[in-house]
Amino acid sequence: MPAEIRPIWKPCGVVTLTSDFGFDDPYVGIMKGVLLSQEPGLALVDLTHSVPPQDVRAAAFFLERSWSWFPPGSVHVAVVDPGVGSQRAILAAFDRGHAFLAPDNGLLSGLLSASADVRVLSLERFSLPRRSRTFHGRDVFAPAAARIAAGLSAEEVGPAAATWLRIERPRAAREGPDRVRGEVLFADRFGNLVTNIEAGDLGDPPHAWRALAGGREIPVGSTYSDVPPGGLLALVDSFDCWELAERGGSAARSLGLGPGSQVVFRRPSA
Amino acid sequence: MPAEIRPIWKPCGVVTLTSDFGFDDPYVGIMKGVLLSQEPGLALVDLTHSVPPQDVRAAAFFLERSWSWFPPGSVHVAVVDPGVGSQRAILAAFDRGHAFLAPDNGLLSGLLSASADVRVLSLERFSLPRRSRTFHGRDVFAPAAARIAAGLSAEEVGPAAATWLRIERPRAAREGPDRVRGEVLFADRFGNLVTNIEAGDLGDPPHAWRALAGGREIPVGSTYSDVPPGGLLALVDSFDCWELAERGGSAARSLGLGPGSQVVFRRPSA
Amino acid sequence: MPAEIRPIWKPCGVVTLTSDFGFDDPYVGIMKGVLLSQEPGLALVDLTHSVPPQDVRAAAFFLERSWSWFPPGSVHVAVVDPGVGSQRAILAAFDRGHAFLAPDNGLLSGLLSASADVRVLSLERFSLPRRSRTFHGRDVFAPAAARIAAGLSAEEVGPAAATWLRIERPRAAREGPDRVRGEVLFADRFGNLVTNIEAGDLGDPPHAWRALAGGREIPVGSTYSDVPPGGLLALVDSFDCWELAERGGSAARSLGLGPGSQVVFRRPSA
Repeated sequence: MPAEIRPIWKPCGVVTLTSDFGFDDPYVGIMKGVLLSQEPGLALVDLTHSVPPQDVRAAAFFLERSWSWFPPGSVHVAVVDPGVGSQRAILAAFDRGHAFLAPDNGLLSGLLSASADVRVLSLERFSLPRRSRTFHGRDVFAPAAARIAAGLSAEEVGPAAATWLRIERPRAAREGPDRVRGEVLFADRFGNLVTNIEAGDLGDPPHAWRALAGGREIPVGSTYSDVPPGGLLALVDSFDCWELAERGGSAARSLGLGPGSQVVFRRPSA
Repeated sequence: MPAEIRPIWKPCGVVTLTSDFGFDDPYVGIMKGVLLSQEPGLALVDLTHSVPPQDVRAAAFFLERSWSWFPPGSVHVAVVDPGVGSQRAILAAFDRGHAFLAPDNGLLSGLLSASADVRVLSLERFSLPRRSRTFHGRDVFAPAAARIAAGLSAEEVGPAAATWLRIERPRAAREGPDRVRGEVLFADRFGNLVTNIEAGDLGDPPHAWRALAGGREIPVGSTYSDVPPGGLLALVDSFDCWELAERGGSAARSLGLGPGSQVVFRRPSA
Repeated sequence: MPAEIRPIWKPCGVVTLTSDFGFDDPYVGIMKGVLLSQEPGLALVDLTHSVPPQDVRAAAFFLERSWSWFPPGSVHVAVVDPGVGSQRAILAAFDRGHAFLAPDNGLLSGLLSASADVRVLSLERFSLPRRSRTFHGRDVFAPAAARIAAGLSAEEVGPAAATWLRIERPRAAREGPDRVRGEVLFADRFGNLVTNIEAGDLGDPPHAWRALAGGREIPVGSTYSDVPPGGLLALVDSFDCWELAERGGSAARSLGLGPGSQVVFRRPSA
């Protein structure tokens, strides 16, 4: 990419953190300590630390659907890192005004645009003096994020990445003009079943379709109050995915479904 | 209320967040992203996001007993919102130097004073350009809170609310001069059973009373160390409610009680 | 300690919080409200609030291994306080550029150095006007931390502590030149079993040793990828302790071990 069109990195001082560390152990707090040690004024925001242990795919989905709600100039650090201590690279990517730091394990592959400037982070330059082989969140990601958030340019971060690992989420499949098959990605705290069927995957008008899941036929609506309390419905959720929900209850429990469960949308013939 | 006595809103830059979103999903983080996008310098504080799903009453109690510990000028945002996407209004209330944002579902009714200036939030003015019907925390509450925290006056927020929904917590009942009946509101992490019997509900002196719960008679004390390890006692807690506790243990487990369980305080005849 | 060599306290505005309060109740949020009421610009960082209820030893370990990752000038507040409301003192300690606030129950004893300046906090000076007997986190620790973080000197905090409570973690025992016995301190979210055997407790070279635990002999490695997926290994972790781990899995589950389980390291004879 020629220098004159490379996006200029203008940090805003916000750093978001996504990991599978949970909140029971002090790992997240320690990362924040390193960040504030290097760059005192940062605004640190937890996106989530409840990614299932080592579930790169789940972290990738959450980050992909969340980053754009933060101000331009944010640095998004995602540490779900089964390969810590191995030779896997760490990527620093600059894309649409935001910066992203993650292991090169596919975590960023779904969100990067064609114009992303992807760099291989220089471990030598950014690691703390004594780098452990088990906690790069503390020893590499945190100090690197602090310095990127302080205004380091893409060039200073490291060389351009020749290639990087891509992972694919299972995509919904169109099985004819009136049938789309997908699966549940996860159940949120309310028991809403978020699927991999995107808002635009059904033909218009959406309300002519029905969802089939857990042996039930479920009507399509546009908000929870479209059905009576206890009623099931399918609707486009805040991730822009089709979701199965129960008004005032848990669709996951009522339908007995979870990650990987099959969901079909069908348009009855006219 | 004539303009000359209407309280002037002076924000301090603190925004507290209360919800039933939990920490497993990125919903809370996304709300913070929107807040910081609109108003970079805000100090964001989680009050709790572990309100049981859609339990407006629990959120109302926590917020009512917590807001006054924050600095004047704080904006308190509470999103426990079973009616999201329906026609329910969103209230912005200005009361004793603080601002409150919540759905009009009773969440604020217990804490508002007679002098509260209660407004119906203008959705048109504050919503993000594309408003979902499932996540107003992100699309309405967060941008509105950011702008109120930036100094918007009550008048600019929306018209005065003609009326709003009130919910009543079950109140303790005095069943004679020497008997008060109440119930457990919730068990905290320590297994302390917080009841709806307020500090002032018993006649003086409190230590002359006994609590009856779970088939046990429990003495009244003023702090945990008034009883030996493993002993039960009733005391006024930090919410200013009577609470049943076990020193070094869990009263909830030992007594087998939880939300809704009956508790009687009795003053033995002299 | 003569005045001329007493460390000068230079706060940096960071306050860390460690407790057994969990995140379900609003206790942590309320403490932050008091902190920000007294000192608006503070940066508040949760270290962990998931210390098992009243487990002073666990809190002591987490704080001892975490504080040094924060910037000099940080105030570390630890409220695991089974003796709240009793006559136990509250200590304020100044050590190696950091300040620490905790009940005098042994929580700080492992981390304080010989040059620590330990003070008994003046309750009269720092308590909120109405001090409860159940929640000193709110009524004493938070206001005191805010004022220490604003620059109060050691002298102003209270008189030197003549003595304070020490607790000892169980230490690993060397049972001959080729045998070290220790125990599991806790399992982290990944099921890694952190032991009380310190990095330096084994003789060189470490890779000549084997761990014996749960009826298994486990090789020593230096990072997770030293073994194939599903393999067990022992390695020095980010706390500088020997840890038993399963690559891509949970050693706690596979070995059936938890806090208190015995672990032996043995060097087979050459």
